[in-house]
Amino acid sequence: MESVNEKDFSFGKPKPIDLSHHLSDISKARKPSPLKDLQRFLGNPNLIQMAGGLPSPAYFPFASLSAEGLVAESFPISPSQSPPSGSAFSWFWKLFGAPTKEKTTTLTVGKYPEQPDDLNLAVSLQYGMAKGLPQLQKFIDEFTTRVYKPAYKDPVCLVHTGNTDGWFKVVMTFCNPGEGVLAAEWTYPSAMNTTRPLGVTPVPVPIDEQGICGVGLRKILAEWDESARGMPRPRIMYTVPIGQNPTGATMEATRKKEIYEICVEFDVVIVEDDPYYFLQEGQYTHKSSRSISRTESDEEYIDNLVPSFLKFDYQGRVIRLDSFSKTVAPGCRLGWFTCNPLFAERLERQAESSTQAPCGLGQTMVTSLILNWQFNGYIRWLRALGTQYTQRRDFLLDCFSDEFHLEVEQEHKGAWKGNTVYRAYAVPRNARAMIEKTSARAPMFSFVPPTSGMFVWMQLHLNHHPAFPDETPVTLEMKLWEKVALAGVLFAPGRMFSCEDDGEASPVGSGHFRVSFSNVPVSKLYLAYVMESDH
Amino acid sequence: MESVNEKDFSFGKPKPIDLSHHLSDISKARKPSPLKDLQRFLGNPNLIQMAGGLPSPAYFPFASLSAEGLVAESFPISPSQSPPSGSAFSWFWKLFGAPTKEKTTTLTVGKYPEQPDDLNLAVSLQYGMAKGLPQLQKFIDEFTTRVYKPAYKDPVCLVHTGNTDGWFKVVMTFCNPGEGVLAAEWTYPSAMNTTRPLGVTPVPVPIDEQGICGVGLRKILAEWDESARGMPRPRIMYTVPIGQNPTGATMEATRKKEIYEICVEFDVVIVEDDPYYFLQEGQYTHKSSRSISRTESDEEYIDNLVPSFLKFDYQGRVIRLDSFSKTVAPGCRLGWFTCNPLFAERLERQAESSTQAPCGLGQTMVTSLILNWQFNGYIRWLRALGTQYTQRRDFLLDCFSDEFHLEVEQEHKGAWKGNTVYRAYAVPRNARAMIEKTSARAPMFSFVPPTSGMFVWMQLHLNHHPAFPDETPVTLEMKLWEKVALAGVLFAPGRMFSCEDDGEASPVGSGHFRVSFSNVPVSKLYLAYVMESDH
Repeated sequence: MESVNEKDFSFGKPKPIDLSHHLSDISKARKPSPLKDLQRFLGNPNLIQMAGGLPSPAYFPFASLSAEGLVAESFPISPSQSPPSGSAFSWFWKLFGAPTKEKTTTLTVGKYPEQPDDLNLAVSLQYGMAKGLPQLQKFIDEFTTRVYKPAYKDPVCLVHTGNTDGWFKVVMTFCNPGEGVLAAEWTYPSAMNTTRPLGVTPVPVPIDEQGICGVGLRKILAEWDESARGMPRPRIMYTVPIGQNPTGATMEATRKKEIYEICVEFDVVIVEDDPYYFLQEGQYTHKSSRSISRTESDEEYIDNLVPSFLKFDYQGRVIRLDSFSKTVAPGCRLGWFTCNPLFAERLERQAESSTQAPCGLGQTMVTSLILNWQFNGYIRWLRALGTQYTQRRDFLLDCFSDEFHLEVEQEHKGAWKGNTVYRAYAVPRNARAMIEKTSARAPMFSFVPPTSGMFVWMQLHLNHHPAFPDETPVTLEMKLWEKVALAGVLFAPGRMFSCEDDGEASPVGSGHFRVSFSNVPVSKLYLAYVMESDH
Repeated sequence: MESVNEKDFSFGKPKPIDLSHHLSDISKARKPSPLKDLQRFLGNPNLIQMAGGLPSPAYFPFASLSAEGLVAESFPISPSQSPPSGSAFSWFWKLFGAPTKEKTTTLTVGKYPEQPDDLNLAVSLQYGMAKGLPQLQKFIDEFTTRVYKPAYKDPVCLVHTGNTDGWFKVVMTFCNPGEGVLAAEWTYPSAMNTTRPLGVTPVPVPIDEQGICGVGLRKILAEWDESARGMPRPRIMYTVPIGQNPTGATMEATRKKEIYEICVEFDVVIVEDDPYYFLQEGQYTHKSSRSISRTESDEEYIDNLVPSFLKFDYQGRVIRLDSFSKTVAPGCRLGWFTCNPLFAERLERQAESSTQAPCGLGQTMVTSLILNWQFNGYIRWLRALGTQYTQRRDFLLDCFSDEFHLEVEQEHKGAWKGNTVYRAYAVPRNARAMIEKTSARAPMFSFVPPTSGMFVWMQLHLNHHPAFPDETPVTLEMKLWEKVALAGVLFAPGRMFSCEDDGEASPVGSGHFRVSFSNVPVSKLYLAYVMESDH
């Protein structure tokens, strides 16, 4: 009788179903790299290896690589430092409460290992398998299992060179020219720029404050008319379910289950592009009533995160894209797929004849850092990062709240349905250039306070602008955007996020700005704001 | 009247011609990444940037990156150290004459720059343009101009993530499904594995001891029968002209000019995949008559290198792929295209919606190293690297010469035409398992001593094997390969390098091994050899 290993997270889970019919013609035609066959002899330690075109590591001009890595505890989990009492700069100081002198630990990786399993440059700067470094593989396997808790047996993690390339590889591996991919009606433009030239057309799906909407998705799939649409019913859905780009929407568990079941019914593969997963910020509450302590344990923190689609994926039809871009740094160009073994094998074949393994220097230093932090340290880092973004989100929305009269809409009739839409009205002291000819009681813009990610999606009520309808919303959006930019604040104009090529998806009379609170030095924002308020 | 800048390497050179008709349908459909348009406002230093989804560099968990970089003079230019006189281990010691303790210099890159143009992690770990770091761009521009001396005005260098991905991007940017690419009949299999699944068929071109043969190329193009071939005349030629993979062939200047003119005549774009460029080793001479001093200046060294196709490219129809894989380390996953501006722009668009910029950690440390070495130091490093590979090549061929009776063929009738083909015959004391039943006066194998690269291409005369013709050459090649592998020496079996999918390109009765001398620890090889000789 077999004993049940307590740590066997796959125990009792279903096996993934056969989804091989989703592979593209290109992917089906791919063979393993012939040179990789040689690997089977490489186990012999005395082997004289004269097969591969590998340089000798003696010629790698790095004797070692090092980094001063920040300690996992660099930022506070709770925004609990008291601001200088009563100071006008209280928010400034709170947000700038990060240590002025960074506490670091020295990470060093030498050319040759001292212990057999040590990271070492002789291996990590050499040609390697497209799967990347085994130490990194081990970490992401454990991380994925413990954090995302996939619902099926033995999912596979495979490193990639960032989610943009990950998505490109998915399109090449699953889509044929002349087909479509389902995507939110407002979506990440680079992702659609990847698909269109390949002859794969984005099919917009209506969204609400949680992103892709089940009713809208089902309607599209159930009513699909191949001849009217000029393409078969889409088999692939692209989604950024947490901190959606550009709307900032977060898809909660119930919605995910609903969407997943629709995808089972219509045999759709879900591509979960989830770079903002750990920037979960919770509900926005005004600073006057904000509670700031976070006392949960790491396990509670993980359990309280909005789950990944993987958690509901009992069939293996989710391809999850994780990225170190927002948790470590974008320049790592490092992330990973989690998917069923058949899909992973095909994605690996594609990597072998294009990017191969991600950069060895990047892999080495990221792996060195997270091995130093260990699982608990990395979770600690991610929690604090979430807190940092929460403070940034709160600061921006507090500014909105100070500058405008905000009203919560219970039943919004526009693009956003739901109960957390805020409408912003001008208040007299703020009647500046952009709004001064606008009726004081007409809302200027609406937004849903994001509960994750980096973005606030402002829906501009351009039909209340005095130039409307002489100027179209598209023209007005661009004029306003340029005016704001020339005044020194750069937003992203909304129409570039339209899933459809012509950028005309806005509801009648509206436009949008995507406002990112992730990068601007808060001090700069605060000072600009204070100076404006002093006018 | 304009003054002529002595440093203007473009002065008097022709402009590239319009070759836009070579772009693939996919490439023509590509648009610039919409978010990149925002860049035009980023010049304003006081701009409050709320457009891009960029994390704050405060959250990058690396305060600095460092490396112990080898000094540029780490290896000797000339193999001039005297071996322990008369020692049986003389070659061993000469090849192991590299410094036992590596001399290094510390390279450190901090998060924020001290001077505006300093390398810094706040930039290099952030999202960036697909062109990569400006400091690296500047270096490769200068390097390309001074070393390869392109024949047309204003070629563009663009970083990529290694030549395998570079070639993938070229295929996507220039080839449509149903078309063909010209390639040497024996060629780098991963390159062909990239094209085939995309519906792009390799068209084998006959080769000789210099690689692709002008007569054979012209014949294919001039006699192209679209209906018989089932595809239009190929517009793209893939070539590894220096240290060709797998044959080790080097294409000299005269041949390159001939090939280039044929490509002009038939409007073919030349893709020059040239990772082994600096592993130029010169003619092999037996150790008894070898002269080992290299006294040329750096300028003479550069002038004496076999030129790149770029030097003859007065129309801008060459896409050159350079790689740091063999000059720094494969794990860098870093290299660059050199091509005309129109092609470069399209390749950059493709990078934007797939890999984006190469890994920032890799770019930073490679750039830091070569900025430390400077141009002259890098040339110094490359010269010494060439010497190292020359010694390795010589050692392997000396072993052949000691073990077999070698004869130089003046007029070889087989696959190799030319005057540098060696035939290897068994001599009685070496009549071991593989050859003992073979006629003592029938050649066992032939090879052209490579003048560059990492490979010796052994043509096995299997028709002299006692099991022939009962066993086919294909079966015999694999059996011999496996026997050698089980005995502890791993070669690469020849048929995997066949340009054609079925691997049946060998001349009647022959097989091949690709023998790499790049990676094996020379001490191991030497000791194995000495022990064998003592039998």
